[in-house]
Amino acid sequence: MRTSLDRLTPFMVMDILQRARQIPGAVHMEVGEPDLSPSPKVIEALQRAVQQRRFYYTPAKGLPELREAIASYYKRNYGVEVPVERILVTPGTSGAFLVVFSLLKELDGMVILADPSYPCYRNFLYLLGLDPLFIPVGPERNYQIMPEDLNRKGVSALVVSSPSNPTGTVYDPEVFKALIEEAERLGIWFVSDEIYHGLQYEGRSETALRFSDRTIVINGFSKYFCMPGLRVGWMILPQEMVRRAEMICQNIFISPNTPAQYAALEAFDEGYLQTVRETFRQRRDFLYGALKEMFPVDARPEGAFYIWASIGEYSNDCLQFAKRLLEKKGVAITPGVDFGTNQTDRYVRFAYTRPLDELEEGVRRIREFLKEGL
Amino acid sequence: MRTSLDRLTPFMVMDILQRARQIPGAVHMEVGEPDLSPSPKVIEALQRAVQQRRFYYTPAKGLPELREAIASYYKRNYGVEVPVERILVTPGTSGAFLVVFSLLKELDGMVILADPSYPCYRNFLYLLGLDPLFIPVGPERNYQIMPEDLNRKGVSALVVSSPSNPTGTVYDPEVFKALIEEAERLGIWFVSDEIYHGLQYEGRSETALRFSDRTIVINGFSKYFCMPGLRVGWMILPQEMVRRAEMICQNIFISPNTPAQYAALEAFDEGYLQTVRETFRQRRDFLYGALKEMFPVDARPEGAFYIWASIGEYSNDCLQFAKRLLEKKGVAITPGVDFGTNQTDRYVRFAYTRPLDELEEGVRRIREFLKEGL
Repeated sequence: MRTSLDRLTPFMVMDILQRARQIPGAVHMEVGEPDLSPSPKVIEALQRAVQQRRFYYTPAKGLPELREAIASYYKRNYGVEVPVERILVTPGTSGAFLVVFSLLKELDGMVILADPSYPCYRNFLYLLGLDPLFIPVGPERNYQIMPEDLNRKGVSALVVSSPSNPTGTVYDPEVFKALIEEAERLGIWFVSDEIYHGLQYEGRSETALRFSDRTIVINGFSKYFCMPGLRVGWMILPQEMVRRAEMICQNIFISPNTPAQYAALEAFDEGYLQTVRETFRQRRDFLYGALKEMFPVDARPEGAFYIWASIGEYSNDCLQFAKRLLEKKGVAITPGVDFGTNQTDRYVRFAYTRPLDELEEGVRRIREFLKEGL
Repeated sequence: MRTSLDRLTPFMVMDILQRARQIPGAVHMEVGEPDLSPSPKVIEALQRAVQQRRFYYTPAKGLPELREAIASYYKRNYGVEVPVERILVTPGTSGAFLVVFSLLKELDGMVILADPSYPCYRNFLYLLGLDPLFIPVGPERNYQIMPEDLNRKGVSALVVSSPSNPTGTVYDPEVFKALIEEAERLGIWFVSDEIYHGLQYEGRSETALRFSDRTIVINGFSKYFCMPGLRVGWMILPQEMVRRAEMICQNIFISPNTPAQYAALEAFDEGYLQTVRETFRQRRDFLYGALKEMFPVDARPEGAFYIWASIGEYSNDCLQFAKRLLEKKGVAITPGVDFGTNQTDRYVRFAYTRPLDELEEGVRRIREFLKEGL
């Protein structure tokens, strides 16, 4: 009876991270966490919340003002009207996924995930006793799920992330729309993980809500808004799910951290966010340019802060590759196997969440590493 | 297939709370949230964490310094040595319960709960697809589970809270010890909810860890330490559960709010905590004295910040009673039915989480209400 937790997979990158922290001068290209501070307005709002002793619980669905602010953001940023009633603030996007997958569990179907994709998706499913249905995605389709993948028996939902972790790819808006329409036609819930929205360097991200108000949208303040440790996210649900989601939130969270919710009120600071995007764009340009001379990069890195690179020319064991690169040169990266089983042993993920000079140093060391031989 | 979420029960008190907020001058005796600020040292530490931009993720098990500080607290306060390795910091005690019940789910047995007890226990179980086994507890046994209740088939765990919500009762240390020993003899996990520790007005609370290091202890900073909205709790697990619990935390939380964890480092401020306890003791003394002249109080209110009172002389419908008291006199209380089905329709819970003058005003209005007739 130890089935579902036995399927939980530990993150190899955690071992890498722990080891890297012991190495003086290590270059961190493994971490999916922005190094930039949030907007100064966010910090001021947080200080104000502390001064005003905002240490009480908020309603389970979140601070009403914050839900309003999120609704305004959808109007301003995407031109989409979202009723405040359907917006629920959660402890990080992790909290939102927990609630959404708990709701999906009632439907008793499989959940389509891309392989490779963010490992917590499958671990949430395992934890709740749900089954993933993995769609192998590779360079021939820019690592994306396509409408023709959806027509399977016993599927209740699919999860799509665009921009994507670990590949940094972004769905073409037409394909994205077609995918949503096909899901709706088949009666499959479309779960759109939009946590990397804003961090897109070609074109712009469209929210799934633009194409249907029956999608489930998950987002949060941990990436683009640079507030990872404050643990505030949100979900936008179809009306019929709201009441149950609220009851789940009441019971399993009570409410998200209160000062952090007040801080998040100031997060939609367009001027500051533009500098965030530009900073990551410069890093992406540098790192993509440098890496592709050493490794084939067959996923277009148009968003998020990751580059998914093939190490097949050098090794068929990404974990060994990552460990040796760390031990010999003090450069930490994430082995591809953390993200799935589809060819992932021949890929690694580079994060550009550190300043340009560190990335330059990292690249210099990787060049040496490859030249000296593994 | 809509079984488990259908069993989730909404809290009636939430409707009461929402309505009470619309009534000017309402007296709040429904809320299970301390009105006192945390120690000034906690607030300074929180401000410092913000100034120092501590917005990154911490390890999933929590800030190492905080886990050390919790271990020291067990040594100092209870005289118990707890290896830091077995302490995990969580987003509130709610987060700890979620992880613990996820671990228990693997054992596929029922979980013993007292009826009445804290409603989230059963809702966590329903959410995860586990079954509670309710033990009806009443005044004849001071609302407590006894060793002879445990010998049932198909039970994997029991949850005990002392001091208790909703009754405020505290286990006699001898009974507590016997209960732990009987659970251990039967191979049942003993889950000790110690969130109201410190708020005890006769004798003192013993941690379950004093009697066995194979108990599961859950506690947090939301009650005694007066930090509800900061959402930091902890759990102390038997060694064999630690690795799985850590993997669950990695996946479902990433980590608890970081500034709040730094703030919690300063929460064990004994001088300040003594004034917290004294404040609640005075309120308890006043409210208990006043209420027992109007209602039989058959549960000894020795801890937490609740009084469980029988309204049977006036009504057999606690929800109607609570609603009328609110509409006619603007006093909000919690109907007993929120806590179970065992005689709960003839009880209500009073919280003393507001200043003495408000409690006095509440009592005055309740007297009028009873005199005028419902």
